[in-house]
Amino acid sequence: MNNTDVSDLLAELRTRGPLVQCITNSVVTGFTANALLALGAAPAMVDNLEEATVFAGIADAVLINVGTINPAAGETMVATARAAGAAGTPWVLDPVAVGGLPLRDRVSAQLVPLRPTVIRGNASEVISLAGLDGGGRGVDSTAGPETALEPARSLCGRTGGAVAVSGPVDHIITADEVRTVSNGTDMMTKVTGVGCALGAITAAFTACASPADAAFAATAVWTIAAEVAMARASGPGTFAVEILDALHDLSPEQLERLRA
Amino acid sequence: MNNTDVSDLLAELRTRGPLVQCITNSVVTGFTANALLALGAAPAMVDNLEEATVFAGIADAVLINVGTINPAAGETMVATARAAGAAGTPWVLDPVAVGGLPLRDRVSAQLVPLRPTVIRGNASEVISLAGLDGGGRGVDSTAGPETALEPARSLCGRTGGAVAVSGPVDHIITADEVRTVSNGTDMMTKVTGVGCALGAITAAFTACASPADAAFAATAVWTIAAEVAMARASGPGTFAVEILDALHDLSPEQLERLRA
Amino acid sequence: MNNTDVSDLLAELRTRGPLVQCITNSVVTGFTANALLALGAAPAMVDNLEEATVFAGIADAVLINVGTINPAAGETMVATARAAGAAGTPWVLDPVAVGGLPLRDRVSAQLVPLRPTVIRGNASEVISLAGLDGGGRGVDSTAGPETALEPARSLCGRTGGAVAVSGPVDHIITADEVRTVSNGTDMMTKVTGVGCALGAITAAFTACASPADAAFAATAVWTIAAEVAMARASGPGTFAVEILDALHDLSPEQLERLRA
Repeated sequence: MNNTDVSDLLAELRTRGPLVQCITNSVVTGFTANALLALGAAPAMVDNLEEATVFAGIADAVLINVGTINPAAGETMVATARAAGAAGTPWVLDPVAVGGLPLRDRVSAQLVPLRPTVIRGNASEVISLAGLDGGGRGVDSTAGPETALEPARSLCGRTGGAVAVSGPVDHIITADEVRTVSNGTDMMTKVTGVGCALGAITAAFTACASPADAAFAATAVWTIAAEVAMARASGPGTFAVEILDALHDLSPEQLERLRA
Repeated sequence: MNNTDVSDLLAELRTRGPLVQCITNSVVTGFTANALLALGAAPAMVDNLEEATVFAGIADAVLINVGTINPAAGETMVATARAAGAAGTPWVLDPVAVGGLPLRDRVSAQLVPLRPTVIRGNASEVISLAGLDGGGRGVDSTAGPETALEPARSLCGRTGGAVAVSGPVDHIITADEVRTVSNGTDMMTKVTGVGCALGAITAAFTACASPADAAFAATAVWTIAAEVAMARASGPGTFAVEILDALHDLSPEQLERLRA
Repeated sequence: MNNTDVSDLLAELRTRGPLVQCITNSVVTGFTANALLALGAAPAMVDNLEEATVFAGIADAVLINVGTINPAAGETMVATARAAGAAGTPWVLDPVAVGGLPLRDRVSAQLVPLRPTVIRGNASEVISLAGLDGGGRGVDSTAGPETALEPARSLCGRTGGAVAVSGPVDHIITADEVRTVSNGTDMMTKVTGVGCALGAITAAFTACASPADAAFAATAVWTIAAEVAMARASGPGTFAVEILDALHDLSPEQLERLRA
């Protein structure tokens, strides 16, 4: 994909306004919903067991983020992923902090076989997630994206989807190829929920494109919005505000910043 | 009510600083609390069963918003509405996304007979809420406010209170009359929690005025603050920040924008 | 401590980047995480029973804030405080709205004997917390910080730590001494989570300093950041954004504003 393809896909997304169901962590719900609205999607945070499984058949895409999981939420996540699969609704798994925390590890190990359309995480999370069944976790919080390539490929083999590894250079991996996006700013690590919002934005794009194209376009759009915001921000507080304005108005001209 | 009446009521609210208990959804808690503080009210998000029923007798008003309901929260909502009624504390029901989602539909059907002082929602939610007992739901997410007038009146007949229907033109309905407010901006639909915050602001005003006056003043104050904010904002991120500043400083002169 | 000591401690904190586990209320999770990131710490909102007790042995410090407690959260709080104590991890208790609300009163009465490193609250909360076992609560929501000195000292006698009482003048109390900080702005009371964020910032400093030094430095840094933000803000919305920018860039020169 080049910047014209991303631009076309963003235009299509804004026209369709996909309904994105989010089962996400309690820290980032508001920021995630605002990022989806700024993108042109419609967020719906339906996350109780009874309704979430119904809604997975209505929504255009689903996000499951295990950041502040608890036992009831874990049960809802598995049931909703199953319902999404049954309904043919694409869904994204964000395995926040997986690797060494028992509840999210157990639930994530149940979620991978349900075949998420896209898995999005940092290198450590992707390595940990790939190793959950094998016992050899080898978590390293300083792991670079390239160390996650082989684990990501093995996950793609199990899900049939794509894996997006966030980092200074973002990698989008499928069984057959690796694409990179080299946009963004360090300030993205100084605001909570920037990675989690990318998971939601990725879900929105899965309603309009293949897994790899969705992950690529979401990463491009969000990291370029971050660059636009950074030029206007004077710190993490203003950055978190400006990135929403930037995403809302992102233009084809701005997408020419894409460094793929 | 004209802009002078609204201005007087806002001044009274700021002097009294009503304590508003919020049982609301997890996406908007922070924005709702900040909107109440900017208004001049005191938010209290006490939402566990044991304490919520105690607090409903201490608070000046209560908000119940079913946006991210779960079974335990539903039980707390019903018990708190009952406690508010017993204590004579006015309360507002915001039936977010009611109509086709089973848990919130069941709980909302229990809440209406407990006679909320004001019901606040969009047209689809009000139509759905009115139809919950009758089976004839007829939900239409594109329903205009005018299609909600008759359902709203039937709800007023059951609650003895008012119903506020949000939309491009906001309608405040009682058994006897319909009032309208034509302020606001489309950007209100691009930020999560703008409608939910109006529910909380309405609750604050119920501590100082009749149901219909409270709903009217809350709608006027919030939609005019939105217009003031829009003039300073460059997108949804800055709008969500500026609306709090605008509400905090809203003046009698600015309330002259009221188009009732 | 003078402003140079605070500046040195802030530099050390930024170098070490302590991992701060937060079990906090649902209204302020995002703002709290952003405040910790702006400070230079790493937030982790791990709050389910199973993982929270594991994480208390990994984290550099723990915050327990009872603001939106429920029965399951209360159980997690007590178990996590116990795990933190066993692991030698310092922890901060923020007894939000304690005094007359039964669940948080019971849980807080269990938490004090587990010896929090620092207790942070307003005068009413500290007075109430000190009286929970004695029955003589004497809660007064208008209590000034000086009325909390004796109750705070009695808490210090039980915990061996420090108590920080927020107010127009902040007081940091140990068994042996009282220090004051006279910085800040009234606008801090118009934004939700400003006090709760101070609890988290205090926890971050407990990873680098004695209880009293941690509470003093946290209070100094946060209230001076508030003054810097106030000069740039035009209301509570912009203030909440600017305080994060100000904290992120807080300099030794700005810390010379300290009025201890």
